[in-house]
Amino acid sequence: MRTTYAVGIDVGGTRIAAGLVERKGRIVKETKRPTPKTGPFAVVDAIIDVAEEVSSAAHPSEVAGIGIGLPAQVDFLRQEIEFCTNLPLAGVDVRSLVMSRTKSEVTVDNDGHLAAFGEARYGAAKGARDFLMITLGTGVGGGMWIAGEPYRGSRGLGGEIGHTVIDLDGPECPCGGRGHLEAYLGRPALAAKGRAAARTFAGRAILDAAGGDPDAVTAEAVVMAARGGDATARQILLEAGEVFGRALVGFVNLLNPRLICVGGGIGESADLLIERAGEVMRGEALAGRRDVEVVQAVLGNDAGVLGAAALAFDEHDSREGLHR
Amino acid sequence: MRTTYAVGIDVGGTRIAAGLVERKGRIVKETKRPTPKTGPFAVVDAIIDVAEEVSSAAHPSEVAGIGIGLPAQVDFLRQEIEFCTNLPLAGVDVRSLVMSRTKSEVTVDNDGHLAAFGEARYGAAKGARDFLMITLGTGVGGGMWIAGEPYRGSRGLGGEIGHTVIDLDGPECPCGGRGHLEAYLGRPALAAKGRAAARTFAGRAILDAAGGDPDAVTAEAVVMAARGGDATARQILLEAGEVFGRALVGFVNLLNPRLICVGGGIGESADLLIERAGEVMRGEALAGRRDVEVVQAVLGNDAGVLGAAALAFDEHDSREGLHR
Repeated sequence: MRTTYAVGIDVGGTRIAAGLVERKGRIVKETKRPTPKTGPFAVVDAIIDVAEEVSSAAHPSEVAGIGIGLPAQVDFLRQEIEFCTNLPLAGVDVRSLVMSRTKSEVTVDNDGHLAAFGEARYGAAKGARDFLMITLGTGVGGGMWIAGEPYRGSRGLGGEIGHTVIDLDGPECPCGGRGHLEAYLGRPALAAKGRAAARTFAGRAILDAAGGDPDAVTAEAVVMAARGGDATARQILLEAGEVFGRALVGFVNLLNPRLICVGGGIGESADLLIERAGEVMRGEALAGRRDVEVVQAVLGNDAGVLGAAALAFDEHDSREGLHR
Repeated sequence: MRTTYAVGIDVGGTRIAAGLVERKGRIVKETKRPTPKTGPFAVVDAIIDVAEEVSSAAHPSEVAGIGIGLPAQVDFLRQEIEFCTNLPLAGVDVRSLVMSRTKSEVTVDNDGHLAAFGEARYGAAKGARDFLMITLGTGVGGGMWIAGEPYRGSRGLGGEIGHTVIDLDGPECPCGGRGHLEAYLGRPALAAKGRAAARTFAGRAILDAAGGDPDAVTAEAVVMAARGGDATARQILLEAGEVFGRALVGFVNLLNPRLICVGGGIGESADLLIERAGEVMRGEALAGRRDVEVVQAVLGNDAGVLGAAALAFDEHDSREGLHR
C-alpha cells in the first residue's frame, strides 16, 4: 500500500525535532523539544513523545514508518548504534524501543547520511544519482550517494569525511587524530580563530557580532561578521575554504562525483568558504574532474527531519516491494 | 554463448604485454614487446600485433573479447582516452582502431581499475565485494569496488588515489599539485630519498643495491636494501608507510571498506611499508572501522593482463545477458 506520510525525527545534541512529512517533502506537522540530559531512556522517551505527537495528525495506516537520524555512528545493516559522542546512546537499541512503543516500523541512521537523503530527495541534490554530501557543523560529516542510493560502506560506518588527514602535522582533532579536516572546519576550530581575532583590534567586528564578549565568539559570529564585509572574518573563512578545497581535490580525484553538496549550519551559511573551496579544488584537481558542481544545501534546519522521513518512505517501499 | 578465453593487454610506458586467458585466470599464451616510441599509431599497431599473436592459439568463436589496460585517464562510458601522461594516446580512439583490425569486441580501461579487476577475480581480493585497490608504482592509483562491481565515478575518472592532499605544505606532485600522496609514495619520491641516502655513509647498503652508482638508485634498490635488513633503507620505507597509513585513515573513515588491497611494483614488494601503514591506520581510524584487512596484491607482473582479460569476460557476458 502506498502511504501518504512518514515521520522524520532529527536527534541532535541540544534538541530533538520531528515532522510528519508528505511524500513530496511538505512537513504538515512538526514539533521539537530540548534533548534530555538525564540518560539514554529519557532521550528514547522524548523520541517516542515527538513521534506520537506528530503522527497523531494522521491515521496509522497512512504512515509509512519512522526514520530517526542520530549524531552517532550507526551500523546500518544491524541497526545498531556503535558510537555516539554527544549522547549516551551507544549500545542502546533505539530502533526496537521506539518500535515496540509506537507499533510503527523504525529505521535509524547517521545524521550525515540522512542529510544526503534529504537533499537528494527534496533539496539541492534533487535528481543527482552520484554525489558527495558534506556537512559542516560542529562536526564534519556526510555521505556518498551512488547510482541513486546511499553508499554506507561495508558496515554502514562510511561517510566520516571530517576524519580525513589533510595535514601530517596539523592540529589535534576532537576524535584524537591529527590534522583531520574537522580540526580546521568544525565549529570549535572556526570559533577558536574568531576568539583569537576578537581579542585584537582587527577583530572588533567579530567581537561586535558576539555581543562584545570575546569568550562568546562562535563560528556563527565569524560568519555573520564576514557577511557584513569584515576583512578579518572573511580571511578566517577564506583560509578555512582553502583547506576545504584541498580536501575536495582528493575526494574529486578519488570519487569523480557529478556534484558535491555542502550542508550543515556552517556549510549552508558560509558562502565565502564554499566559493573559495570550489576555486581551490578546480585549480588543483586533475583535469576532466573539475566540472563537478559544488552547491550549498538548501533544506536548513529541516534537513534532518526531511532526510529521516525520506529514509522511512524508502524503507517502507522496499518492504512492500514498491519502487520509486 | 559462453566463451573460453579472453585477451588481456597491459600497455605500460616501457612494454606492452598480452595474454590469452582462460576464465579461471590461467594464461595459456603470452607475449610482450617494448612500447614503441614513434607515435600513437605505432603503439596501436603493437597492441594489434600482440592481440593477434596470442589469440592465434584459439578459434575466434572461443574468444570473449579484448580488454586493454592503459596508463591513462579513461572516460569508461564513452571509451575515450582523456589524458595519458607517458604515452601519446590522449584523444586516440584505441578501441575502434583495434576493433576494426581484429574484428573482436574491445574494451579499454585505466590500469589501476584493471589491477582491481584482476585481484578481485583471481588474486588477493578474490570474493571481496567492497574493497579499495591501491597501486603503488611509478604513480599511485587504484580503484574502488562496490557490491562486486568497479565504481568509476560519474565519468569513469575516479580512483586517482595518489592525488589526495595529505599535507597542505607538502612536496610538489608530478601532477602539479602539492602534498599529494604520490609525491611521497611514487617511485620517483622513494628513489630521491634513496639517492640522497646513498651519498652518505649510512646509505652504503642502498648504494650497493644500486651497483655503486648513487645516480642509479631506484625505488627498487631501496626496497632490496631494506629486505636485506639495512636500517637506512628500512627507515625510508617506514616513513613512507607512515604517510601511507595517514592516508588510509581518511579512506577507511570515508569508505568503510572491508579490505584494502595494495598492489603495483612497490606495493607488492615493500612489505615493511605496507605493514607500517596498516599499524598507523589502525591507531588513528575511528573505532569500528579498524577491522579492515590490509593485504598485498599477489598477481605481480600478470595483474594487468589478468585484469584486462577479466574485464573482457565481464563485458562479453553482460552483452550476452549472461551472469557470473
